[in-house]
Amino acid sequence: MANGRGKFISIEGGEGVGKSTQIALLCDALNRQSVETIISREPGGTDAAEEIRQILLSGNDNKFFPRAEALLFAAARSEHVERLIEPALQNGKWVICDRFIDSSRAYQSGGSGLKDEEIMTLHQIGSGGLLPDATILLDMDLSQASHRVQKRQKLLGDDDRIGSREAQFHENVRAAFLSYTKAEPTRFHVIKANQDIDIVAKEIFDIVSKLMS
Amino acid sequence: MANGRGKFISIEGGEGVGKSTQIALLCDALNRQSVETIISREPGGTDAAEEIRQILLSGNDNKFFPRAEALLFAAARSEHVERLIEPALQNGKWVICDRFIDSSRAYQSGGSGLKDEEIMTLHQIGSGGLLPDATILLDMDLSQASHRVQKRQKLLGDDDRIGSREAQFHENVRAAFLSYTKAEPTRFHVIKANQDIDIVAKEIFDIVSKLMS
Ligand SMILES: Nc1ncnc2c1ncn2[C@@H]1O[C@H](COP(=O)(O)OP(=O)(O)O)[C@@H](O)[C@H]1O
Ligand SMILES: Nc1ncnc2c1ncn2[C@@H]1O[C@H](COP(=O)(O)OP(=O)(O)O)[C@@H](O)[C@H]1O
Ligand SMILES: [Mg+2]
Ligand SMILES: [Mg+2]
Repeated sequence: MANGRGKFISIEGGEGVGKSTQIALLCDALNRQSVETIISREPGGTDAAEEIRQILLSGNDNKFFPRAEALLFAAARSEHVERLIEPALQNGKWVICDRFIDSSRAYQSGGSGLKDEEIMTLHQIGSGGLLPDATILLDMDLSQASHRVQKRQKLLGDDDRIGSREAQFHENVRAAFLSYTKAEPTRFHVIKANQDIDIVAKEIFDIVSKLMS
Repeated sequence: MANGRGKFISIEGGEGVGKSTQIALLCDALNRQSVETIISREPGGTDAAEEIRQILLSGNDNKFFPRAEALLFAAARSEHVERLIEPALQNGKWVICDRFIDSSRAYQSGGSGLKDEEIMTLHQIGSGGLLPDATILLDMDLSQASHRVQKRQKLLGDDDRIGSREAQFHENVRAAFLSYTKAEPTRFHVIKANQDIDIVAKEIFDIVSKLMS
């Protein structure tokens, strides 16, 4: 069956807001509507980009200065877009991505020291400035989110170099995300992430289903 | 002894032109003049940058698209400048670097598909656009240089993903290097690299010693 370009949806928000949980539910719901989906994540998504992810997330917090970190994320994203996201969209598949450019903006600019324009320039050079058709921001109090992360860590033992930064850093990240939604109210959709899983899932699906037509 | 900012010298040119050989000789000569030197190389120079070097130079030729490759080189250089080159210069040391920004320009733009302005924009964002006080370009015929590399490979068995590209790529790189010397005749000094080692060394030292004062 001939079909047009797929849709590109990114799910954003800090650690523990429910991105992975909701992406799985969203893909199930889309598949039930016969939409073919690909789930991916940043940084990563291709072999070479996963190698970059590995050096980005391992080691201690000061391993990279913010500028090098921003360039590495842009490099991983460039591979991800050129090798996986663009070909999938051109094949009519929908791509649901766990974090994308707005995480780079929030973490390397809002949280660290680069200008937002510098991050966007790197994205322009690396990935032609590709933006999602829709970006879902899962927003909630940091204290509640970190409570969820702690529960998950007890279960899985996962932790990384960036996720483990101090509270003020994560407050800055949250504020940065919210500021982007004000600047681009059409692309962004803010959802209260401290609601029940099913309610969050329904709100996301209501937004995303408007892209089907 | 109080002294001012050190000088920053890059040695450029394709594989086998004699960069490593001449850097060792230049540092010896400078040390005999009581100039403290640091030898470094790109990509690399710090632990984190060497990790990036590792993923850049391993694997097959198509591992990274040119845009991701350019971002990775810029990331390695950003670490290198901020953590090693700038502090050394500020301490009055001279830094002699085996390849620097002009190799990125020649290999990722002259040889591959990016615009020179894009490479320079990445360098601006990553490293504040730092340029060497002097850049020595060792220039020679590709056939002679590759003859040297083959001899060295028989000895050492070294080879990498980028050095092993086809002849036309390396012709483009050489032409790109030469074009930069025309655009910036004050920073660049072209030396015929097919001369005897001692003659090349003397010509380099004559140029570099003009920076002492
Ligand atoms: N709406 C929710 N209410 C309560 N717990 C949730 C909710 N969404 C996710 N969780 C739980 O919180 C933890 C973090 O969710 P996860 O989807 O891994 O977040 P993220 O991918 O954003 O870090 C998981 O243990 C998950 O089961
Ligand atoms: N001027 C020269 N004449 C002849 N052989 C040379 C000269 N300079 C270097 N070589 C030899 O050529 C090979 C490549 O030199 P090297 O300094 O490793 O080049 P590069 O670092 O630019 O790849 C080495 O085996 C070296 O001993
Ligand atoms: Mg997750
Ligand atoms: Mg060498």
